[in-house]
Amino acid sequence: MFLTGQFISVKGLEMRALVLEQGQVQIWEDCPAPQPEKHEVLVKVLKAGVCETDLQLARGYMNFSGILGHEFVGVAESGRYAGQRVVADINCCAAEPCQACPQNRHHCARRSVLGIFNHHGAFAEFVAVPEDNLTPVPDCVSDDQAVFVEPLAAAFEILEQVAIKPEHRVAVVGDGRLGYLIAQVCHMKCPEVTVIGKHSEKLQRFTQHQIKTQLLQDFSGQLEFDVTIDCTGSVGGLELSLRITRPRGRVVLKTTVASRYEIDLSPIVINELQVIGSRCGPMPRALAALADSRIEVESLITARVPLEQAGQAIQLASQPGHSKVLIEIA
Amino acid sequence: MFLTGQFISVKGLEMRALVLEQGQVQIWEDCPAPQPEKHEVLVKVLKAGVCETDLQLARGYMNFSGILGHEFVGVAESGRYAGQRVVADINCCAAEPCQACPQNRHHCARRSVLGIFNHHGAFAEFVAVPEDNLTPVPDCVSDDQAVFVEPLAAAFEILEQVAIKPEHRVAVVGDGRLGYLIAQVCHMKCPEVTVIGKHSEKLQRFTQHQIKTQLLQDFSGQLEFDVTIDCTGSVGGLELSLRITRPRGRVVLKTTVASRYEIDLSPIVINELQVIGSRCGPMPRALAALADSRIEVESLITARVPLEQAGQAIQLASQPGHSKVLIEIA
Repeated sequence: MFLTGQFISVKGLEMRALVLEQGQVQIWEDCPAPQPEKHEVLVKVLKAGVCETDLQLARGYMNFSGILGHEFVGVAESGRYAGQRVVADINCCAAEPCQACPQNRHHCARRSVLGIFNHHGAFAEFVAVPEDNLTPVPDCVSDDQAVFVEPLAAAFEILEQVAIKPEHRVAVVGDGRLGYLIAQVCHMKCPEVTVIGKHSEKLQRFTQHQIKTQLLQDFSGQLEFDVTIDCTGSVGGLELSLRITRPRGRVVLKTTVASRYEIDLSPIVINELQVIGSRCGPMPRALAALADSRIEVESLITARVPLEQAGQAIQLASQPGHSKVLIEIA
Repeated sequence: MFLTGQFISVKGLEMRALVLEQGQVQIWEDCPAPQPEKHEVLVKVLKAGVCETDLQLARGYMNFSGILGHEFVGVAESGRYAGQRVVADINCCAAEPCQACPQNRHHCARRSVLGIFNHHGAFAEFVAVPEDNLTPVPDCVSDDQAVFVEPLAAAFEILEQVAIKPEHRVAVVGDGRLGYLIAQVCHMKCPEVTVIGKHSEKLQRFTQHQIKTQLLQDFSGQLEFDVTIDCTGSVGGLELSLRITRPRGRVVLKTTVASRYEIDLSPIVINELQVIGSRCGPMPRALAALADSRIEVESLITARVPLEQAGQAIQLASQPGHSKVLIEIA
C-alpha cells in the first residue's frame, strides 16, 4: 500500500525524500512532510545508513511503498527530547497498544515498522516516530556511530536470547556488515569467536579485534560450535550453520530471506538443535557499548552520499566493494 | 552398507528376519543370528511395531541395509536382566564411548542405531543390544504396551526440552500415531492441548482424553499457540506450525523429512520463534507412564502379523486405514 494518508503537509512543509513506489526508487523534491500522530514526534534526520533490508525492499520484499530508511540519527523537534540528538526503535506500536505490548513492544500485533511496513522511513529530511521509541544519544557518540545503533541493537538481541558463556565456541557465518557487529558483540562474552566468510579482504577487518576467521573455501565444517549465528541471508549460510553446530547446540537465524527456498532441515531433528529467530534489539544497550568504545563501527563506512543522490546510495550499497553507505541529510 | 560382519552364527543359530537389502524388503528364513559384542546381550524378540521411519528406510532413507525394526519388547538372554522382559534404547554407543557419551549418549559421535544405522534391528527372532540400553519391563505393562515404549519415550523427550506449563496453549500438528502419544504426554502438563489434523476419524480418538481437536480444513490458523509440535513429517505441517505459534513461542520439530524441500522460514525471524529439534527420549519415564496407566496406547493397534509375513506388515502400515501394525514374533 502507498501511505498517502501520511503525506499531509505540516505547516505547508515540503521536504526531500527517497521514495519507493511501484518498484521504483526515486528522490521526491517536494514530498509533504509526515504528519505526526498524537503519540509521535517529528525528528529532523541528520544521517542515515543503507541496510541490506532496504535493498530487499527495493526488490519487492514486504511489498512496501513509501519513504525508505530505518537506520538513522536525528534531532527531536518536540516532546521530552526536543532539541536533543536521538535514535529510534523501528517497531512502532499504535497509540492504543495491543495485548502483547506491555511485555513485548517489538511484537505488537498492530505495529508498523519505520521504512519497512506501513510507516514512512528516514531517508528524508523529517521522519515521524512514536516518542516512546526514542533514545537520546550521549555527546561522546558521534553521528556516524549513532547511525549504527539500530543494527548494533539487533546484534545485541542475540545476547538477550542466548546466554553466551566464556567457555563457548561461537561461529558467525557471514563476513558482511551485520557479521562485523555480531562478531564483536559475541566476542565481549567469549574469546572463541570464529567468523566464517567467503571474502578474504572482509575477513581481515576482524583480526584487529582478535577474532578468528575462516575462509569458507578452506573450511572442513566439523560439528564443533556451541552457538552458530547465521547472518548471510542465504540458504547456503543456514545449511552450513546447521551442519557445524554440535548436537543440542543453538543456531541463531538473524537474517530473513524474501522467498521460499529449498533446504534440508534434518540436522535440526537428528542433532536436536535449537534454531532461534532473532530480529530487533535493545537500543540503549547498543548506545552504551558505543559510548564505552567497546564496539567499533566507523571502519564499515565506505561511502557518503548527500540526500539528493540517495538513489545512488542504494545502488552503491549493493556493489561488492561497499560496506555501509551513509546518506548525509542535514 | 550391508552389515555382513554381524551375520555370524551364534552356536550355529539361524533365525527368521525381515531384511532390507538393495531397496528390497524380504523375509530371510536362515539369517545368521547377530553376534553380540562384549558390551552387548542377545535379546529374544517377542513383539515389534512398524514405525513411519521403517517405511522411509524402505524408500531409501539413511541408505540402510540390514534387519529392520526398532520398536520392540523381548527377553534378555544373558546379562543382568537375563530372563526378564526388556525394552531398548535404539542409540547404541560403541564399547569405547566418545567424548560426548558421558553427558549425552543419544548423541554419541560413534553411535549405531538399532534397525536404522549400522546396526541390525528387531524384526527378527533375536537382536543384539548394548546391555546399558536395556530397561526391564514391569509385570503390569503388557507386551503390546511395551512395544510403544520407544515412540512414547520420543514423545516424553519434548518435556525434557520444553517446560510445558498449565497455562500454556499447546498445538499438536498431525493426528497420526506419534501425534496421539505426544498429545497425551502434553496433556499431562496442561489442559489446553489442541490436535490439528486432516482426518476426522483419527481426530475422534483424542476426544476420549478430553483433548481438543481441529480439522485442518476448518482451521483459521491464527497466531495463538505458546508451543506447537509438528509431527506430520511434511513441509505443510512445519509451515502451519510456524504460522500458528505466537511471537517468541516454541515450535518442536519431531519428525524428519528424508529430502530437501522448499519452505518459507521467515516467520522464525519475524516472530523470533524457537524451533527445537527433538528425537529419542527417556525409556524409563515412558515405561513409568504406561505402568501408571497415564498413557493409552493399545487402541492404536490395527493389525497383528506373524514374523513370517512381516513384509506385509510394512505394506499394511503404509495404508490409510492402519495405525500401529504389530509383528508378533515369539
